[in-house]
Amino acid sequence: MNIIMEIQYMGEAYSGWQRQSNASSIQQKIEEAIYKVTGQYADVIGSGRTDSGVHALAQVANVKVKTKIPPERIKHALNYYLPKDIRIMKTARCSDEFHARFDAKRKTYRYRINVNSVESPFERGRAYFVGRELDCSTMKEMAEQFVGEHDFSAFRSEGSSSKSTVRTVYDCEVNREGDIISIRITGNGFLYNMVRIIAGTLVEVGKGKKFPIEQLFESGDRSKAGHTAPALGLFLEKVYYDIDIDGSKW
Amino acid sequence: MNIIMEIQYMGEAYSGWQRQSNASSIQQKIEEAIYKVTGQYADVIGSGRTDSGVHALAQVANVKVKTKIPPERIKHALNYYLPKDIRIMKTARCSDEFHARFDAKRKTYRYRINVNSVESPFERGRAYFVGRELDCSTMKEMAEQFVGEHDFSAFRSEGSSSKSTVRTVYDCEVNREGDIISIRITGNGFLYNMVRIIAGTLVEVGKGKKFPIEQLFESGDRSKAGHTAPALGLFLEKVYYDIDIDGSKW
Repeated sequence: MNIIMEIQYMGEAYSGWQRQSNASSIQQKIEEAIYKVTGQYADVIGSGRTDSGVHALAQVANVKVKTKIPPERIKHALNYYLPKDIRIMKTARCSDEFHARFDAKRKTYRYRINVNSVESPFERGRAYFVGRELDCSTMKEMAEQFVGEHDFSAFRSEGSSSKSTVRTVYDCEVNREGDIISIRITGNGFLYNMVRIIAGTLVEVGKGKKFPIEQLFESGDRSKAGHTAPALGLFLEKVYYDIDIDGSKW
Repeated sequence: MNIIMEIQYMGEAYSGWQRQSNASSIQQKIEEAIYKVTGQYADVIGSGRTDSGVHALAQVANVKVKTKIPPERIKHALNYYLPKDIRIMKTARCSDEFHARFDAKRKTYRYRINVNSVESPFERGRAYFVGRELDCSTMKEMAEQFVGEHDFSAFRSEGSSSKSTVRTVYDCEVNREGDIISIRITGNGFLYNMVRIIAGTLVEVGKGKKFPIEQLFESGDRSKAGHTAPALGLFLEKVYYDIDIDGSKW
């Protein structure tokens, strides 16, 4: 049986999504829980990796296991064995062909920035504390320019293995609620550290720096874009698929 | 110089607001920071106590010290010495007569309840996890009945030292956002555990239990009201005063 699951996690305590031999990962924790529940070693396939410290509000994964537990109850069995900073929010049976990575159509990330001069205890570890005001309206203007199909070479870190550096951004919005400025970006895929470099660039724009974005897209020169904003402000918010399961859209 | 301050804290790690000989309190941590910054032992007067585990979004306190640090900068000096789960969000000079407890006119508390069947890692320690749906509309109806001047004896725990058990509730609203049902209650004062017992009663109402509220007010019988909801869902949200400081209302 192929099981689809929606997962929330706080990234602080983990080396990231992907299983690693020498560090604790979210994928490994879920695979261990699956072993405890079903007695089977099975690969949990995520929609994609998230780096160490990055959070997820709705990571999606699938796993093939044999079990008599009703699919919608599997979440509770897994949560019993999982650490409390990783929770399986939903489980459902999906078609055997479903693959969480290959079938992902779009993803939305949120990047949160705290502009208060004092860091609220409730925002610690959940927003990039810049300690000063930012000009939200110039950030909004810049954000719009990321929308479209572009070569994002200037917005990726070394160590990226993707062949093509062209990605489509469907939406990039900047909104403010109280002391938190949120960047919400939806695309068909993201290069390594792309959202964090876009966020770092937007923070610098908010401080008054200018970036000639057309030149950045043309030159692909990473050194001309902004800094890589820290992992703790980044949330994988939604992964979009073209499937319906039990009447609800995933 | 009399300094007024607005304070945020996460209550988990502390025995509560009030200084105690054998436990770590928020008041004590702030008094220690004041000693480190000014070299003076001074009483920090809070608007009122909060219990162990209770959070504050805007506790208010005052303290009389001699210092050459500009009042609005004192927060940064104190935060340097304070643990990161306690933050002084604002400091300002106020009149020598100002007393954070005696001058408090009204207070607003928020009580947060998580009704998802799985506990989001991001809500852990910040909302009462009841693990099931509640009927928000019957909770709203019941909440309205707390408004007014009533004898709240049935809604207080033993150990309360207040002489009068009559309090005025100005507003008691129930609202839902996603999986979180919030109770927001404003009054001229609250008895010991009053908000948590009101919250526990409303949770039971949301599960279908009926409470004859007029009888509760008349009898003052604590055993006929609901359970005391846990501290971790409770937030001191605002304390109201009749003073203006540097053009901003406190």
